[in-house]
Amino acid sequence: MTIPTRLTAGQIEQDLQTLKGWRVQEGKLFRELKFPSFVEAFGFLTALALVAERMNHHPEIYNVYNRVTLTLTTHDAHGLTVLDFELARAADQLSEQRGE
Amino acid sequence: MTIPTRLTAGQIEQDLQTLKGWRVQEGKLFRELKFPSFVEAFGFLTALALVAERMNHHPEIYNVYNRVTLTLTTHDAHGLTVLDFELARAADQLSEQRGE
Repeated sequence: MTIPTRLTAGQIEQDLQTLKGWRVQEGKLFRELKFPSFVEAFGFLTALALVAERMNHHPEIYNVYNRVTLTLTTHDAHGLTVLDFELARAADQLSEQRGE
Repeated sequence: MTIPTRLTAGQIEQDLQTLKGWRVQEGKLFRELKFPSFVEAFGFLTALALVAERMNHHPEIYNVYNRVTLTLTTHDAHGLTVLDFELARAADQLSEQRGE
């Protein structure tokens, strides 16, 4: 599989506008989410896990009860790529369906 | 639901002997696990999530690809209780079934 090209600062700035609640932190895409309960939080993570596995691009996940933190980066490209924004967009869509 | 009693240092020391790979870190039960792939890692987390929800006692979860870190504590008791050791034992059993 070809490794996608690392995005420039300008491209990242532009792509961030299309997302909901994400910021760049230490060069990675970062978002905190809060759900009504653990059931919704883990349901969201399970849906995201399936998307991530299909993409072969996996998020860094932190979860405690109804709170989820996602951190995205493309290790092989040493930075952010289209894969990170694609996964972030999927996370936004899935979380909206789950009362985040 | 009654909040279980916080365990003493002696009880914690003794209960730790019955677990696999756990240590106490900043007053919490802590274990790092590594699986063959994300599928096994997330499969383990899903099984653990069901157990946690049934117990109404939830772990702090960190996951990146095939690695999982679990941190357990009983917030209401301000320390470790039998619930944490029960959940840790469940995690040990579930991880053994998944090639950790």
